[in-house]
Amino acid sequence: MAHGGKPRPMKGIRQLAEHLDISIGTVSRALNGKPDVNEETRKRVLAAAEQLGYVANQSGRSLRQGTTNVIGLMIQSSKETVENSDNFFLTVTGGLQSVFSRHNLDLIMLPCPHDEDPYEYLKRMVARRIADAMIISETQRVDKRFDLLAKAKIPFAALGRSLSGAQHPWADLDFDGVVNCAVDRLVAQGHRRIAISAPASEINLGFVFVDGYRRALERHGIAYDPALVIRAKSSEQGGYQVGDELLRLQDRPTAVILIYELMAIGLYRRVMESGIIPGRDIAVVSFREAPRAKFLQPALTCFRTSLHDLGVELAEILLSSMPAYSQEYPRKSRQTVWPLDLIPGESDAFRLTTTK
Amino acid sequence: MAHGGKPRPMKGIRQLAEHLDISIGTVSRALNGKPDVNEETRKRVLAAAEQLGYVANQSGRSLRQGTTNVIGLMIQSSKETVENSDNFFLTVTGGLQSVFSRHNLDLIMLPCPHDEDPYEYLKRMVARRIADAMIISETQRVDKRFDLLAKAKIPFAALGRSLSGAQHPWADLDFDGVVNCAVDRLVAQGHRRIAISAPASEINLGFVFVDGYRRALERHGIAYDPALVIRAKSSEQGGYQVGDELLRLQDRPTAVILIYELMAIGLYRRVMESGIIPGRDIAVVSFREAPRAKFLQPALTCFRTSLHDLGVELAEILLSSMPAYSQEYPRKSRQTVWPLDLIPGESDAFRLTTTK
Repeated sequence: MAHGGKPRPMKGIRQLAEHLDISIGTVSRALNGKPDVNEETRKRVLAAAEQLGYVANQSGRSLRQGTTNVIGLMIQSSKETVENSDNFFLTVTGGLQSVFSRHNLDLIMLPCPHDEDPYEYLKRMVARRIADAMIISETQRVDKRFDLLAKAKIPFAALGRSLSGAQHPWADLDFDGVVNCAVDRLVAQGHRRIAISAPASEINLGFVFVDGYRRALERHGIAYDPALVIRAKSSEQGGYQVGDELLRLQDRPTAVILIYELMAIGLYRRVMESGIIPGRDIAVVSFREAPRAKFLQPALTCFRTSLHDLGVELAEILLSSMPAYSQEYPRKSRQTVWPLDLIPGESDAFRLTTTK
Repeated sequence: MAHGGKPRPMKGIRQLAEHLDISIGTVSRALNGKPDVNEETRKRVLAAAEQLGYVANQSGRSLRQGTTNVIGLMIQSSKETVENSDNFFLTVTGGLQSVFSRHNLDLIMLPCPHDEDPYEYLKRMVARRIADAMIISETQRVDKRFDLLAKAKIPFAALGRSLSGAQHPWADLDFDGVVNCAVDRLVAQGHRRIAISAPASEINLGFVFVDGYRRALERHGIAYDPALVIRAKSSEQGGYQVGDELLRLQDRPTAVILIYELMAIGLYRRVMESGIIPGRDIAVVSFREAPRAKFLQPALTCFRTSLHDLGVELAEILLSSMPAYSQEYPRKSRQTVWPLDLIPGESDAFRLTTTK
């Protein structure tokens, strides 16, 4: 009974070739990424395929079978991702697979090369019809991939929100909840001057994080100061830089909220070089628990979640939007904000008594 | 001109169905992992496919085209891998892609679920004919996957050696060179009692590491003491455990060589809890440089390599063994021991003067 992707009307390769007035063989080779087709022709073919709503099929496979039994997970191997990815994707993958395996669906990971545009990469994967359905990650504030997949009528879900994906299925970590909880906690301990780190990129979670921070401050009647939003890479080196910029700020903040736990390693190092002790002289709270954060001294106040269960949720959201599985996975909503729990550490375990 | 995988003789699905005396449709559904085939039948079909040398083809695609233009990289998402993988695979992937993209070959990652046997998983991927060629990783001391791929006549290369893969293409980090360099350096600084960490699993690199350690000690006339080989997970927690076991050893070692840099975080923490300072009271040398090691105090003496370039090498080794590309990638050897350079830190920067 269960097989992925409903049969859908599609223009044949013959119509595409006629439209372009080139041979079926050339169209096929262009769609299949063969090197003996010149770049100009390849682009023309892909553009026409998109325009005509043609979901190319590498070898007629889907036309005959309607299914590959493969789900693709697109990841970006950008420099920053590479430095940060650590266990994130493999843990989510485990959760995804635990659901997909029930249906004999295999998950493959599609790593977009760092020098290729993610949109063009995905377009190529869609054209090659490499999977029945797609999961995209690292969603950008404006992310054309949502429209691309919707137009291609490929079932998909996103790990992360975007302004572009309003009605589409997604699951995303609750960055807003995290930053609200962090601000509340720091304000309760007497802090008013609270800095925050944010990515320099257009990744959507950065916007959610800073928006949440701004609104949380407003709730407490604290004026938002853009100087306290420090843009840095989500890495140890980025944390070191945040420490450096914090120390150079006039009227130095008494607390800082980090968007990525590895940053704490560099931040600790930098402030300690100046004799400032986290958990005594400056409060540190960070999104997200990680094994290595356990070994920081002082222990980092952070947020815990099960990435495996997030993978399960995302898999169910995706299947619920695929006609072949939707009955098995009935849902009220296909958009999930995934919760995290505060894990109190020692990095913010002091009350601010002096007024700065 | 370039396309992957030579056309190869293979038994048709018809012969397979005749041999099993079941319908072609059922054989096809079994090979394609459809859920409406019972498990018993599926196993029988896969066993017969292997036995008859039938490389199943999901939809006749390869029979017609001979190529998918896809290279598969199998990774294991075991619990230990998940904790350790950090940037390793994505960085190697970047190097692989930089070569494959010249030939319009797409790399996909095939994550073997933690609860599935890697051999069975690979067999299924081979049966589905999901890629023209395969790269396997995390090679075990005895690893049946080498024989599986050789028998299936799928071009492949391994990231890591194995007793099983004697004549097959591989690239592997020089664990032997690392441990020899570490022992030489520590002995030159007066150490005689040198502990080493090793994985508890059957992963081949652990055997290479401990064998190299043993022979390096012999060169220096130091007796090998099995009590100084501490089995632990390659994680922060594993490093903490190594520290714990070190402290409980009679005639405590004055130096320790770690097989994974994250272990240093836990090791530092544990020995410091007992007032023992790395780089002053105990020498620490670790396989491999990582961004986070930079922020350890004292700085970790470790080994540097370019994982990107290792990926390039592995890609070229693989292509050199594929008929369609071998002329472009002529090589004397398809087996590479990949070098690393010592990065002196402060974690072993003292001479041992007292005799223990």
